Amino acid sequence: MRAVDLIRKKREGAELTDEEIAFLVRGHTSGEIPDYQISAWLMAVVFRGLNERETAALTEAMRRSGAVLDLRALPGRKVDKHSTGGVGDKTSLVLAPAVAAAGVTVPMISGRGLAHTGGTLDKLESIPGFDVGLGLERLREVLAAIGVALTGQTADLVPADRKLYALRDVTATVDCIPLIVASIMSKKLAEGIGGLVLDVKTGSGAFMKRPEDSERLARAMVDIGRQCGTEVVALVTDMSQPLGELAGNALEVVEALEVLKGKGPEDLVALCRELSAWCLVLGGAAADVAGGRSLYDETVRSGRALEKFRRIVEHQGGDAGIVDDYGRLPQARHRAQLPSPAAGFVEAMDTEKIGLALAVLGAGRETVDAKIDPAVGIRVHKKIGDGVAAGEPLVTLFYNDAARCDEARRMLAESYRFSPAAVARPELIQRVIR
Amino acid sequence: MRAVDLIRKKREGAELTDEEIAFLVRGHTSGEIPDYQISAWLMAVVFRGLNERETAALTEAMRRSGAVLDLRALPGRKVDKHSTGGVGDKTSLVLAPAVAAAGVTVPMISGRGLAHTGGTLDKLESIPGFDVGLGLERLREVLAAIGVALTGQTADLVPADRKLYALRDVTATVDCIPLIVASIMSKKLAEGIGGLVLDVKTGSGAFMKRPEDSERLARAMVDIGRQCGTEVVALVTDMSQPLGELAGNALEVVEALEVLKGKGPEDLVALCRELSAWCLVLGGAAADVAGGRSLYDETVRSGRALEKFRRIVEHQGGDAGIVDDYGRLPQARHRAQLPSPAAGFVEAMDTEKIGLALAVLGAGRETVDAKIDPAVGIRVHKKIGDGVAAGEPLVTLFYNDAARCDEARRMLAESYRFSPAAVARPELIQRVIR
Repeated sequence: MRAVDLIRKKREGAELTDEEIAFLVRGHTSGEIPDYQISAWLMAVVFRGLNERETAALTEAMRRSGAVLDLRALPGRKVDKHSTGGVGDKTSLVLAPAVAAAGVTVPMISGRGLAHTGGTLDKLESIPGFDVGLGLERLREVLAAIGVALTGQTADLVPADRKLYALRDVTATVDCIPLIVASIMSKKLAEGIGGLVLDVKTGSGAFMKRPEDSERLARAMVDIGRQCGTEVVALVTDMSQPLGELAGNALEVVEALEVLKGKGPEDLVALCRELSAWCLVLGGAAADVAGGRSLYDETVRSGRALEKFRRIVEHQGGDAGIVDDYGRLPQARHRAQLPSPAAGFVEAMDTEKIGLALAVLGAGRETVDAKIDPAVGIRVHKKIGDGVAAGEPLVTLFYNDAARCDEARRMLAESYRFSPAAVARPELIQRVIR
Repeated sequence: MRAVDLIRKKREGAELTDEEIAFLVRGHTSGEIPDYQISAWLMAVVFRGLNERETAALTEAMRRSGAVLDLRALPGRKVDKHSTGGVGDKTSLVLAPAVAAAGVTVPMISGRGLAHTGGTLDKLESIPGFDVGLGLERLREVLAAIGVALTGQTADLVPADRKLYALRDVTATVDCIPLIVASIMSKKLAEGIGGLVLDVKTGSGAFMKRPEDSERLARAMVDIGRQCGTEVVALVTDMSQPLGELAGNALEVVEALEVLKGKGPEDLVALCRELSAWCLVLGGAAADVAGGRSLYDETVRSGRALEKFRRIVEHQGGDAGIVDDYGRLPQARHRAQLPSPAAGFVEAMDTEKIGLALAVLGAGRETVDAKIDPAVGIRVHKKIGDGVAAGEPLVTLFYNDAARCDEARRMLAESYRFSPAAVARPELIQRVIR
């Protein structure tokens, strides 16, 4: 088998066999097949696509490229949740402890913020002392002790994805559904989970801005899960505006804690509840999604979800005092307001631009190596459908650097669009695909 | 400017500016842009194409990637001929001395055999002592002395093409008209010529097997020549069977010498005459192609073309004695016949397979590093349209290794197809495009 022949085969629109795909992934991971052949193949895939079987084969080959987490020693079905990324999305911080508190094991391996989107690891690292680099051995120990852990990608899981993703990033081949599916699913399946809930974002703050693209991606991932023997439920959810009110790393920890305490903004609460309910169904703790919702409500009401969050922080080396005293989290030195330029109703928000404004402020990464300021962020007072008077605050900025604040405020101002007439609020959960 | 943005731009089907294309070529040649980005870009070009302006920009950027031959000190317009490659095509060995003998300077930089096709350099090297590695300085000297030189690509001319071609070869991006055009034309234009005659082969022994593809390639090269200020005439010519009767390196030198002596097979004579006539037109030595043909006839009849060949061999260190004594060329030790399995008419020949049989025999390269046996080859007795009796020889093989001969003979047998009814001979010169 020669890589050049497989590139040509895909270039000509033919299907590759499972063995051929495995040959490419294995060869690339080991270094025997050079990047310049794989990047040509990736571009051919962009134009010719991969069918469901080929995508499953790619997912499987990537999943097997390194270690695979073996959690069979732990009781019950393990589940995880994955989001395609958005602004203000801190559902993982609520869902992981809530689902674990209901008795389902959650081995959650998360990522960092990318471009305009936030990342669970960055949020967790705003908790003093919190260790997001557990490694497989320690991950297994924490899971055995408390049934949940929140950690970062380790070097031994799915090395193929790290190499492929780095290559896609510099060859304009990131944006391609079968490649996205294989990248996400190979990492999730390597966690040894039996069920996966996907939160596929759609709208101005999502990578996929059109609902039809988000649905295609959701359906592709559900199909690949089935092919690979893992039950997947995908929710297509609104990202036409930030989720909740707070965005920024320590601020999002605060808002997640509020939800775990039975408070928090309505949209965030609803999404945490719905995603958790599906996790509980896939984990076998609830018979159906209605039962899952009740069980979620019960773990929050009883304080067990909050208690589980405290245990996670303790087991991962963090200061659990933050749960009761938000003042122990990093605090921005200054606040500023963005007043509304007009009266009317919020018609639309350019949520990608809001995410980029957060990066300017220091809450996200403008470049891969940029350092994050955990304290800074925003509180969004007005969202789509809200009425607003001229001069009324749209956003509060929490900042440490005045120049960055000015730039971010300018971007935030540009991201709002107003209407004189009333505007309907976006539907939060648009589709459930399974 | 970032390579990844230019890859994305082409992926999305947009046009690149001249500056953007020059940025990619310059960056790749200097090593600043890695192969893995260029190969992704090449694959995007395969799917999205390059328009005429982009192809001209690529050609220009490649041409300027290294030294350019400056022949302004020599009198008159310089011309060259390029063939897209075939089996038994030794026209360069006739055309270069004939055109130079008529007073037009011919700085001919040729290549080696590739896959099933022969190469001018390999043929010349069958002449004992002949040096095909003149270098730019010596090339200029020989041209000044005798108005013609036949040499190989030097390291300083068009380094961009060497790097790009090597990359295309291993990434299944060779077969793409704008990339082929830019590769050929950048090298030819770097020779400092004012006119170029292209012999674009079509049929079973050509890289482009369908006439419409060959015509598209021919037209693209003529257009790019115009864009780059060099007059180009392209002849689309038959390669549905070997050209002439002899194929193999020393054997082709013999057949070329026969043509220079006013003899040789009809099809080869006709093509040498037509290509030379066009060279003489582009070189300003003839007013039209009819005048070019007369002038060509005159240089052959007078012996001046043959004399020029002798001068070339002398100036490039070879044994000019071969002109009068073919016995001084390498000789195969054995001969074998391929008898016809049936009576009838030759209907078709798989000329690519014949070229591969020649490689098996040792006349061509099965791999890039393979060593060539200059003595071996074939004489084709029966071509398309010829009547043949059962057992009558189709081909004589000149060989040094019995196992290779058996394998080659089997392949040659498979390459013939017969018909009981009379078959028309293929038209040699199918189109003239200018």
